[in-house]
Amino acid sequence: MVLYGIDLGGTTAKIGCFTEDGTLLRKWSITTDCTKQGRHILPDLARAIEADRSKNQISLEEILGIGLGLPGAVKDGLLLERCVNLGGWGGFDARKELSERMSLPVFAANDANLALLGEQWMGSAKGCNDVVLVTLGTGVGGAVMIGGHIREGCTGSAGEFGHIRVCEKEARTCGCGGHGCLEQYASAGGLCYLAERALSEHPLCPSALRDETLTPERIFSAAASGDGIAEKILDCYADFLGRGLAAAGCAYDPERFVLGGGLSGAGDALLSRVRASYGVYAFPAIQHTPICMAALGNDAGITGAARLVLTSAAR
Amino acid sequence: MVLYGIDLGGTTAKIGCFTEDGTLLRKWSITTDCTKQGRHILPDLARAIEADRSKNQISLEEILGIGLGLPGAVKDGLLLERCVNLGGWGGFDARKELSERMSLPVFAANDANLALLGEQWMGSAKGCNDVVLVTLGTGVGGAVMIGGHIREGCTGSAGEFGHIRVCEKEARTCGCGGHGCLEQYASAGGLCYLAERALSEHPLCPSALRDETLTPERIFSAAASGDGIAEKILDCYADFLGRGLAAAGCAYDPERFVLGGGLSGAGDALLSRVRASYGVYAFPAIQHTPICMAALGNDAGITGAARLVLTSAAR
Repeated sequence: MVLYGIDLGGTTAKIGCFTEDGTLLRKWSITTDCTKQGRHILPDLARAIEADRSKNQISLEEILGIGLGLPGAVKDGLLLERCVNLGGWGGFDARKELSERMSLPVFAANDANLALLGEQWMGSAKGCNDVVLVTLGTGVGGAVMIGGHIREGCTGSAGEFGHIRVCEKEARTCGCGGHGCLEQYASAGGLCYLAERALSEHPLCPSALRDETLTPERIFSAAASGDGIAEKILDCYADFLGRGLAAAGCAYDPERFVLGGGLSGAGDALLSRVRASYGVYAFPAIQHTPICMAALGNDAGITGAARLVLTSAAR
Repeated sequence: MVLYGIDLGGTTAKIGCFTEDGTLLRKWSITTDCTKQGRHILPDLARAIEADRSKNQISLEEILGIGLGLPGAVKDGLLLERCVNLGGWGGFDARKELSERMSLPVFAANDANLALLGEQWMGSAKGCNDVVLVTLGTGVGGAVMIGGHIREGCTGSAGEFGHIRVCEKEARTCGCGGHGCLEQYASAGGLCYLAERALSEHPLCPSALRDETLTPERIFSAAASGDGIAEKILDCYADFLGRGLAAAGCAYDPERFVLGGGLSGAGDALLSRVRASYGVYAFPAIQHTPICMAALGNDAGITGAARLVLTSAAR
């Protein structure tokens, strides 16, 4: 028996075919066609899985189901709002429509929640039942597992750690309308903002970052080669993230924190700083909660989507 | 059948006798004897219940069990640390010892968690399964119910909302060692601190609060009679509390917030301000989460302790 996991993003949809024990047999991506309010999205996904099924001679009976990760608030498998970054797609039961097209059971959940499910199944939260995941990418998102179950929240917003306020005096407005949200510092754009600020605050201090367009990769790589300003930037980034984790910790008191998303690839230079900063801000009883980086990288979403089929079908 | 609920505090232990449908038949208090590391606490409690049982001619068979609320971190019924405000009492299985003394089943949990269980059973969270309780008293504590179950957290610290950092520039040190914790502003002492600060920042502004010792009651009553400084103090208090609730909301996305503890008796003047401030700081999706005051007052703890017997015995 196999499982298909889909991680639907604004640019591409990643698809993976898994065995029941979590082995990834193969994975590939297709372009997400966001034109015409995304009306081609589900037909394209169905066609991609049909093609894989036919090429690998898999009968419908050999497929346990399809898991679908969606980039928006999902409650009980339903997308609550139209997705801005899918051209306004949404507002209907995507799960049901794909299920009818494929004649297979389909289960859907929020993409960050599925990344956590994936990390718990095959990644760095293996064996843990109480986990807080914070995703560091274009935005800062999060997901929460309690007693082995994902908590979606009453409006699908549980684990929205990116909008915990970590700074009081912020003139810029966050995407949510607030000021001083964690996302304004700990996202990719937030990191570049901190870099610009540090460079302008220390105009005479030499730095490799002055000569190039700022990107997270360049900042991490400059810090790795001992660039003083780049190190200061990471310190500041980690300080904000530590405040956010400490607040999430007061709320959930989890077994473990996992950092995911694109920026989590930064490795030990970031992780050691975040651990130190968390130690400064965290309540004594939770000061030693482990913090680790996600292990599955870009495959967390498809892995969790496949896992969703197993956990949902078992209910 | 009846249930006994005990709310063990540093000064008194409140005891209540309930029917299975939550009706409080009678309640009384005994003094908590914290001398000799609290060695008299359990014998005193056992004697008090024995006396009630004998006076009301209740046989052991008619008692479903005893619920015990403890003022410290409890995990799976065990007190994790000795209680400072019980003279260092703790470090053993109080549940088992009381059970042996009484020949009755005894269940124990943290007192704030039981207050929430009580409010959900018979108070202002009736019928809700996903609730965040914040208690405003000597300290600022909290409790969380998810899917009808209390979340204790991995170190018994879930819902420690008093130690979410809500202010960046705070010279005073919090009891936890941190700086700028919600408890430093939203506890009874925090409110008096905000009052002192407001009075000294507006030295020429007349206020009834200048002539008396500051207490929460006096501040609330001055605000109720239109004292301008007292109103400013409540605004400031509500501003901090709104920030804390907004952070708790990002984490849990609950069905409802309940404010408990001694200061929650302040009523509408406080509640309307907290709602307004929460609206400013909360993430859009959770901006309309209801906030209400606890309904059971001082009886929440004994009510929840009695309820604990029902929910634990049913497992």
